[in-house]
Amino acid sequence: MLPDIQFVQRPGIIEFGWGHLAADLLPRTELLRAATWTLTHDAPAALTYGFAQGPGRLLALLAARLSVPETELMITGGTSQALDMLCKQLTQPGDVVLVEAPTYHLALRIFRDHRLRLVMVPGDQQGLHVTTVATLVRLLRSRGERVAFLYLVPTFNNPSGVTLSATRRAELARLATALELTVIEDEAYAELWYELPPPPPITSFAADSSLIRLGSFAKVLAPGLRLGWMQAPTTVIRRCTQSGMLDSGGGVNHFTAHVVLALLQAGDFEPHLLRVRNALRARRDALLEALARMMPSGVTWRPPLGGFFVWLRTPPTIDTTTLLARAEAAGVSYIPGERFYAGNGGRHELRLAFSMLSEAELIEGARRLGKVLQDAK
Amino acid sequence: MLPDIQFVQRPGIIEFGWGHLAADLLPRTELLRAATWTLTHDAPAALTYGFAQGPGRLLALLAARLSVPETELMITGGTSQALDMLCKQLTQPGDVVLVEAPTYHLALRIFRDHRLRLVMVPGDQQGLHVTTVATLVRLLRSRGERVAFLYLVPTFNNPSGVTLSATRRAELARLATALELTVIEDEAYAELWYELPPPPPITSFAADSSLIRLGSFAKVLAPGLRLGWMQAPTTVIRRCTQSGMLDSGGGVNHFTAHVVLALLQAGDFEPHLLRVRNALRARRDALLEALARMMPSGVTWRPPLGGFFVWLRTPPTIDTTTLLARAEAAGVSYIPGERFYAGNGGRHELRLAFSMLSEAELIEGARRLGKVLQDAK
Repeated sequence: MLPDIQFVQRPGIIEFGWGHLAADLLPRTELLRAATWTLTHDAPAALTYGFAQGPGRLLALLAARLSVPETELMITGGTSQALDMLCKQLTQPGDVVLVEAPTYHLALRIFRDHRLRLVMVPGDQQGLHVTTVATLVRLLRSRGERVAFLYLVPTFNNPSGVTLSATRRAELARLATALELTVIEDEAYAELWYELPPPPPITSFAADSSLIRLGSFAKVLAPGLRLGWMQAPTTVIRRCTQSGMLDSGGGVNHFTAHVVLALLQAGDFEPHLLRVRNALRARRDALLEALARMMPSGVTWRPPLGGFFVWLRTPPTIDTTTLLARAEAAGVSYIPGERFYAGNGGRHELRLAFSMLSEAELIEGARRLGKVLQDAK
Repeated sequence: MLPDIQFVQRPGIIEFGWGHLAADLLPRTELLRAATWTLTHDAPAALTYGFAQGPGRLLALLAARLSVPETELMITGGTSQALDMLCKQLTQPGDVVLVEAPTYHLALRIFRDHRLRLVMVPGDQQGLHVTTVATLVRLLRSRGERVAFLYLVPTFNNPSGVTLSATRRAELARLATALELTVIEDEAYAELWYELPPPPPITSFAADSSLIRLGSFAKVLAPGLRLGWMQAPTTVIRRCTQSGMLDSGGGVNHFTAHVVLALLQAGDFEPHLLRVRNALRARRDALLEALARMMPSGVTWRPPLGGFFVWLRTPPTIDTTTLLARAEAAGVSYIPGERFYAGNGGRHELRLAFSMLSEAELIEGARRLGKVLQDAK
């Protein structure tokens, strides 16, 4: 029998590698209520071919929540499907895509599938170096290269946890307009803030440019739903919705979109989000406290203000890629930093996800990792 | 407010154009039972990231039903998503795709999106001319063209209703092996037979070739679920499942796949299928009887033995494309034949779908169409 799910729990290993929501944070009761309502009161609509942009009532609800016109929204099969669709619509093999260093490693895989060339843009604790973006775009274009877009996770970055400052967001939006550069901001974690809401999305800083914003229900409801949304100029929405695939099959994940619509309409989203935030804040705090106690000197990190991840920097004598086998032998796993770089980098960094583990596991995992790092120094 | 669904009922028009299942044939009760079971008993698994090939338990169930190994199966987001994915994995812009004449018009759109060149293969009442396929493939290759695949709807063809004979299926399977030609058989309607089961799928006639079979729950359960399956050589399954998109997002439509799994496990599929078959047989018979009474001489059709469609041939004096406006003014609509051809053809043919209309509507629609055709002769 083949497995049902992606995640594999290896016996005896505390799995810091997986950025999944814990099973006890999935809104089972709310989804059961929503599915029951949908199939009882909304069934012919929810079960037939959907409008290509997504169900109009869900678009209206999202539009109100996000303060954007419905015509600039589209329901997606999650951020992965949205990125794949955007690559198909906006790129040609050989185009350049600019990405943060570090950035979401599986987005890199999607871009590589479309045979795009990846160019890294460095950042700091304020996020991406926006001036470097300008320099790179001009340089690449002067060489005759086509820059398809810039992709970034501006809020609670996966993996670094860094949030792009409001000043730089405004600067990037201006730059996008000036250079006619498409910018895709992946806001998967934007709702998951634990102290203060993050700055407004980059999209909100410019009206007339090619800014695209991706949102997802995978991190705040459940990844198995495969549901998200895209905010983009109507020209981009039109290109995406006028595909043969959507003409043939109707809007993506139409039934699931109705279930999420029912969940939102029932008022179940905000209380659930609050519960997830509180639970994740407690997990983050447990991990940070354990790290403070258990990490050897020379290992550093910054407390993330939201999202799923803590990004550790090790002394340069430690190679996190080769260390992984020893860590797993000691009962703890992580993702080596280099996976999050499109080129060189990350050998002295690693990502810990605190979203799926219990507080006891987080503490024990930190203890095991601390020992492995201490021994490796 | 934007619409929720694809279908638009225009006031006063009997819509023969839409190949949708009627609302009263959608399995609302069965899906409610399945969704309730899933969210009550199978929720962490159904709500997290899915295995890229699809949930193992659903693959096992389908494998047993289809008598194929699980390793040659994959869950898809319906046939439209499967075709789009196959184009992405197996083709390059400029490749040739062979298609039946006539064939499913929206598949043509998906192929065109991938910038494929379409070459039509004629057929007759036994289905596709298999010998012509051989001739065309050899000719195209001798000119240095890459033939990516042949696409066909061998069972109760959309739009013609024709079923490829068992002899020709065997012949096509042999040919695919001999020529190393990938064949994609779209079996969307294969379960919807009204007298006798159709011949076995082309895939069953050869073990070692590049035969791909697509199945869908859209025509037998509900299109809004966006769920189907693909049977293909493991090399093709591997290419499709190892994409960045599935690595990032997990298996497509994972939650919905679990709901359909629960429906199958509850034993609700076969009784529902029987109900759909009986209802569609009655609708087909009502339409055929009405056509026999109401069509003017010179208009011909063959009774389809399954599926959703009756394919009408008009006298050569009638152009079904230009006639459409007059038909709609008279309160009846259809899809003009030319949409189902990749090149010239179909101006004296039209498609009627009987899957969505009541018997009274079918009879009244046939009456209106008969009058329009009579007046146009």
